[in-house]
Amino acid sequence: MAFFSSDIKTIDDLFLTTLRDIHYAEKQISEALPHMIEKAKSRPLKRVLQAHLKEARIQIKRIEQVFRMYGAKPRHIDCPAIDGILEEAVDIGGAVPDKRVIDAALIAALQVVEHFEIARYATLIAWAKELGRNDCAIVLQQNLAEENAVDRKLGVIAASEAR
Amino acid sequence: MAFFSSDIKTIDDLFLTTLRDIHYAEKQISEALPHMIEKAKSRPLKRVLQAHLKEARIQIKRIEQVFRMYGAKPRHIDCPAIDGILEEAVDIGGAVPDKRVIDAALIAALQVVEHFEIARYATLIAWAKELGRNDCAIVLQQNLAEENAVDRKLGVIAASEAR
Repeated sequence: MAFFSSDIKTIDDLFLTTLRDIHYAEKQISEALPHMIEKAKSRPLKRVLQAHLKEARIQIKRIEQVFRMYGAKPRHIDCPAIDGILEEAVDIGGAVPDKRVIDAALIAALQVVEHFEIARYATLIAWAKELGRNDCAIVLQQNLAEENAVDRKLGVIAASEAR
Repeated sequence: MAFFSSDIKTIDDLFLTTLRDIHYAEKQISEALPHMIEKAKSRPLKRVLQAHLKEARIQIKRIEQVFRMYGAKPRHIDCPAIDGILEEAVDIGGAVPDKRVIDAALIAALQVVEHFEIARYATLIAWAKELGRNDCAIVLQQNLAEENAVDRKLGVIAASEAR
């Protein structure tokens, strides 16, 4: 995210730049998820990822709703963080023979994705409130709640597959 | 992290590769923190970062202790995730005139760093237990507890600076 950009002077600028960052990130995640679904071995993991792909598409719409509420537009910005995180996630599975090991690696990579999103949404919600935009905070809160839920579900699958 | 590596065949391999990943990440974070301390404007933020730099150095020692307990050695592996996350964090501040905005951006970037570490340690602890290595899990649990505490402290500072 271009935190260092000369366009950033206020919390308002930070909010918008970070919103563009998570918008880009969610789009990249939506593109990465089908590859991860294909690689996932267990039914429960495939199901959680398929459900999350649908959620991610709705989350993108919610972010675009926040842009409209805020009178701003999405704009492409680089996000080396999510690019690096997804590079690791998509690379999984090539030479791994054991199904259980592939699923464990996928879950581990996805939990980093979820935690990235949890941190970003929590920050955005705090800034929205600071800016007096509880209406935006409420929309973003829905995305945060879904990311937290996915993280918990992945933890449950990891524990059950470990048995 | 080289999840796709042909060296990964078992949960044991995953555990060691991920331990190498977090070892590399903690070293990179220790190198990035002094730059962030320099940029931080408020005393409370500087203090939390200074304390965390000391913690990070101890955390590296704990990871090295787990390597010894496990009869393995650290080895360099690429970690595009932490490289991308830190690229954003270190870039902050160049052209931002407002102290409050710099601190808010630093805290946001650091919370992504903390969440990356929280996800990694949680995974490592789960795998250590699965491998019957509660002794390793206990050591890694100390690092996880510290990362969670830093994340909470950063949230408190962000809220107090927003007032």
